[in-house]
Amino acid sequence: MKIIPRDFRVREGDEVSLKKWPTIIDPFYKSKAQYQELLADHVTRLSSQQQLLYASNRHAILLIFQAMDAAGKDGAIRHVMSGVNPQGCQVFSYKHPSATELQHDFLWRTTRDLPERGRIGIFNRSYYEEVLIVRVHRQILLNEGLPDTPHNDKTLWENRYRSINNLERHLHANGTRIVKFFLHLSKEEQRKRFLARIDQPEKNWKFSMADVEERKFWKQYMKAYEECLSATSTDNCPWYVVPADDKENARLIVSRIVVDTLEELKMSYPKTSEQRREELLSIRKRLME
Amino acid sequence: MKIIPRDFRVREGDEVSLKKWPTIIDPFYKSKAQYQELLADHVTRLSSQQQLLYASNRHAILLIFQAMDAAGKDGAIRHVMSGVNPQGCQVFSYKHPSATELQHDFLWRTTRDLPERGRIGIFNRSYYEEVLIVRVHRQILLNEGLPDTPHNDKTLWENRYRSINNLERHLHANGTRIVKFFLHLSKEEQRKRFLARIDQPEKNWKFSMADVEERKFWKQYMKAYEECLSATSTDNCPWYVVPADDKENARLIVSRIVVDTLEELKMSYPKTSEQRREELLSIRKRLME
Repeated sequence: MKIIPRDFRVREGDEVSLKKWPTIIDPFYKSKAQYQELLADHVTRLSSQQQLLYASNRHAILLIFQAMDAAGKDGAIRHVMSGVNPQGCQVFSYKHPSATELQHDFLWRTTRDLPERGRIGIFNRSYYEEVLIVRVHRQILLNEGLPDTPHNDKTLWENRYRSINNLERHLHANGTRIVKFFLHLSKEEQRKRFLARIDQPEKNWKFSMADVEERKFWKQYMKAYEECLSATSTDNCPWYVVPADDKENARLIVSRIVVDTLEELKMSYPKTSEQRREELLSIRKRLME
Repeated sequence: MKIIPRDFRVREGDEVSLKKWPTIIDPFYKSKAQYQELLADHVTRLSSQQQLLYASNRHAILLIFQAMDAAGKDGAIRHVMSGVNPQGCQVFSYKHPSATELQHDFLWRTTRDLPERGRIGIFNRSYYEEVLIVRVHRQILLNEGLPDTPHNDKTLWENRYRSINNLERHLHANGTRIVKFFLHLSKEEQRKRFLARIDQPEKNWKFSMADVEERKFWKQYMKAYEECLSATSTDNCPWYVVPADDKENARLIVSRIVVDTLEELKMSYPKTSEQRREELLSIRKRLME
């Protein structure tokens, strides 16, 4: 069975209802061994595409990961991107904004970290938190020092979606390819993973009380994700909804989508011009003396 | 044959004469297959140490790579660090400083990129360029806008060494472990590698005319390296001189030194306190309801 990226893609203008998007599907692998083989194949292709990306120096890639806790963002990043030259790949994780960051507009702190040409940048959480957690917990918004206390919420979020879409359109036009992943986890699978973090002592440090508290807001989060995915998935900068209850399957899907995105750029190594070729040959002569 | 890191280490106070340090030694591998096996073993250990580094969150690691062109810095970084979670590893390459960077002291631009606790930071070139290329090409120094035109060169470089040593001492005291690699290449092997970059079209883009020009200053570079290694290799922040004419062997040595440095920290996963344990169990109960 072949992984077809567009099966997971939110089309521009779609109204997303997350209940209709599965958190689990038939796996693309039949055994652990086959999973590892498929993943290794994707990672190898990714690694060679990344070298091309670096050599051709025309595009940057930005991968954005958003999800509920324990959906497997860190694991996906680790398994998909290990094997890629770390010199061509930077990961940024965003936690609570600092006091300094809060003194700026909501797109500022991540903008500083955007990948340069030739590189793959990964945002583990991103400016999308500003229309997700901030939407679920209104108190955060009130602490952001906005010029007007927002009274018409609808307008506020629409303005934020527009800011995001405009930023992404600008980046796309200037060579950055943006791919956004929502790892779609069921509430029940999250419960199991939290239990595992409690039951396995070596995973205890990963667990935080606050994560469990957030489960109370599951519905509000799903609603915020639905509106966000509907408003900000565009032809050029699409969202992919990845069924995440099966970690291995999710990694195969993510890696496949990343590889396809890179291969579609049809990059090639820079050609050597006639003039440059002659220049090189004269250097060659000098080196041979 | 075992790789013993201290064989490659410049001891604090040593007067380095690079002629006495080999650019090639008997390889630590007998075949390509054995090389790959050894490297894979080092990378696996490195990857597991890096997870510990992240979980224990007490130390940061800073690896500095310096060398003449084509010595294999990029390749070493790629082969040694691929396989490590990119989320825990950041590589920074330093080229000509920008106008803004030149408006600051010579340690400023790299300081912004220092690794945070739990991470491995890699500098591909570094502030050491300020006592290497800048020493060889005096014109660069004159463009740095220093308050006094330096007339006593000896004092100037000694002051720079002291600034560097003090910075590194400070970082070490605050948890950053610094390991510095000089990939020691012979002039003849550099010539061969430049020729290969000319003869293999897919490597042409890597080649720059300026690189060949720098060969004229080989002796001056070696002298600058000797003084730099002698003055800035300390017990806590040592330099390693890695024979680099054999790329594979160099990668084995570098990876072994990095692994040893990490293992010497004797890190462990954070222990769960009795109180925290009870807290976790009460959460467990709630999750089971």
